Order: sequence, then structure tokens, then C-alpha cells
Amino acid sequence: MQKLLTRVAHANTLLCVGLDPTGSDEDVTRRLPQVIAETAPYAAAFKPNLAFFLSRDNGVQLLRQTIAGVPAGIPVILDGKFGDIANTAMHYAQFAYDVLGADAVTVNPYMGADAVVPFARPGKFVFALAKTSNQSAVQDAILQSGEPVSDFTAKMLADLDATHRNIGLVAGATNAAALGRLRQLCPRNGFWCPALARRAATWRRY
Amino acid sequence: MQKLLTRVAHANTLLCVGLDPTGSDEDVTRRLPQVIAETAPYAAAFKPNLAFFLSRDNGVQLLRQTIAGVPAGIPVILDGKFGDIANTAMHYAQFAYDVLGADAVTVNPYMGADAVVPFARPGKFVFALAKTSNQSAVQDAILQSGEPVSDFTAKMLADLDATHRNIGLVAGATNAAALGRLRQLCPRNGFWCPALARRAATWRRY
Repeated sequence: MQKLLTRVAHANTLLCVGLDPTGSDEDVTRRLPQVIAETAPYAAAFKPNLAFFLSRDNGVQLLRQTIAGVPAGIPVILDGKFGDIANTAMHYAQFAYDVLGADAVTVNPYMGADAVVPFARPGKFVFALAKTSNQSAVQDAILQSGEPVSDFTAKMLADLDATHRNIGLVAGATNAAALGRLRQLCPRNGFWCPALARRAATWRRY
Repeated sequence: MQKLLTRVAHANTLLCVGLDPTGSDEDVTRRLPQVIAETAPYAAAFKPNLAFFLSRDNGVQLLRQTIAGVPAGIPVILDGKFGDIANTAMHYAQFAYDVLGADAVTVNPYMGADAVVPFARPGKFVFALAKTSNQSAVQDAILQSGEPVSDFTAKMLADLDATHRNIGLVAGATNAAALGRLRQLCPRNGFWCPALARRAATWRRY
């Protein structure tokens, strides 16, 4: 997490620049370095979406090149929403960190702590799904305690972060009340709030 | 789902052969075709684990070759536990079906129906996580209704299958009572029960 905190402090920015390339391989190969160069001064992190690379013939190679082209000091969060048991998660961590050279990943915690911890290597960091802005999701089912599943997940992630110190939450920015509750449950974890910038106009109402 | 049902009927087998290759690239490239050739007569399906391929330098190429080497008529389930919103899921579906040539995928449904439906293309099929044998998972939290989250997920998958007719469940085989309850909730869906063969000795007790 330190690389992200250092970058945030140094560049005075909280913006995470998503890289979800669409279009021909030729266009994308040309445009990605331009986008990175033009947004780097404002970027706290870059976040390539794994699916948008794997769906291309040369996807892994392009993703590796893209990550290598991010200026030193700006962390790269591989958005893979990885969500499998520990042994498999360890192989995804090798892919993200050793094959691709990313600094962090996104993780889907449906299978519990086992699915998260293998990514929490020292020097790396993790953002795990807690409350997304997606509708009709398992996260919104109400537990016996009266709280939604996303609160249960958030508490698990707060506990994990107390040990590992590099586990954050993906917390959708469409519901300010839910976001506030997550912050109460997880006073210390890092939060990544997808599409917050895009929704800034809406947020002014709160 | 028809390709799987036809294969099951034709070969009189319910065995899903997992391909989680470890070892050097050279060994794995040599051994995978041998394993496929020797197990094919008993295989209802092959299930390559995406992580064990991506963690190699030439992983996608090896995975594509491996899938192309599976005898015609035996379906290939790409075990990716994909779990992201619809637009991203559509790109993972392109990867699994168009780039790699798989017949089916595994999916993580934490983000809801949106994360599942893009994989339910006609002629393809999906196994979504409901109740795994993993400990301490979100799936085991108890809802207001008194049922575990995995039951909520199972009902969502039963509803989706009623429309799409090609959505099954990943249902861990360590807990016969839980498996029985899932079958009551989902009388029609296909079930994939990981490691059932390995646990056959235990199962004889039930």
C-alpha cells in the first residue's frame, strides 16, 4: 500500500485511471501509451481491466507492455476480480505480480479470506469487492443481524487488513449512506470508489 | 448444455477431469496431451484451471493448444471463476469462447445476475459458485430468512436457468445435507460437484 500512499501524497491526486481498451489491436496499441502519457500527471494509479486485454489475441503481451510503460512511482492495479481458493489464488498472484509486474489486484471475496490473502504479499496491495453499484447482487441480501451481506464482507476485510495492512475495499460511489456505513465498519482500510469522478454531479446533492 | 448431456449419455460417465498443470513449461507441454489422451474415455468434460495457465509465460497459447487437443464431442469448461459486471463479463466470454474455444465457464456470482448472464450464450453453458467446500466464506453467512447466502445464490441461479436453460451450480461435495438442500432449491439446474470422486470414500457413510 505504501507505493500508492506515496504517489497520492507526491502528486496530490486520488484519481485512478481505468484502462479498458476497445477497438482494433492496432489502434489500441497506439493509443494506450498516449492515454498513459497524458493522464500520468493526474494519476494516483492506473487500473487495466484484465478482460479487455484477454479478449484480444495478443492480450497478455499487450498488457505486460502497457504495465511496463507506466511511469515509475505510479502503481498499477490489475482489475481481475479474482475469486478462487487459496492454491488457485496463489497462481493468479504469480500472474499479476510476477508475469505482468502489477502492484495490486482487485479480488472477489465470495469464497472468503482464502480467496484474498494470497494476494496480500508484502509490498503489494489488494482491493476486494464489498459493495458495488451493481443491482440485484448477492451483496445486498439482508442477514439475520439486519445488515446487508456487503457489511459482513467489509468486516471480514477489516479483520484481514488488521493483520496484513494492505487490504482495501471496492466501494461503489452511488450510495452515500452505504459508503458512510462501510467507512464506519472499516475506519482504516483503503477504499477504491469506482466512477466517483463520473458521478461527481450527483454527489453534490448529498 | 446439450453437448455435455450428449457426452454424458454417450460415454456413460459423470467425471470432470481437471487440468491444473504444475511443473516446468517443457514438462507440462509434454504431459497435458498424454493426460487428455489417457483420461478421455472416462471424461464427461475437461476443466482447465485458468490460473495455472496464466501464471506461465506462454499460458494463453498453451491453454488454446490444450483446448484444441481435446477430442471432439467432449466439452471444455474453462475454470476462471469470472465475477465482474456485464460489460466486463462480455469480454471474458469472448476470451473463453472466441479466443480459446471453450464450451463453458465457471462464474463467481457475488455481483449478481449481471455477472452470470453474459456467459449464457446459446450452445454454451455456465457453472456458477453457490456452495463451495471453502471455509469462512461469505456463502455461509445466515440471512434474515434463516437460510445461508448460498441458498439465496442458488435461487437466483434457478431463476436464471428457467430463462436461459444453460446455467448450473458449483456445489461442493463435502456436506451432503447442504447438497441435498441445493437440489431441492434447484431441481432442474446442472450441478458440478468438485472433488466428489476424491471424497467417494467419505460419501459411502451417507
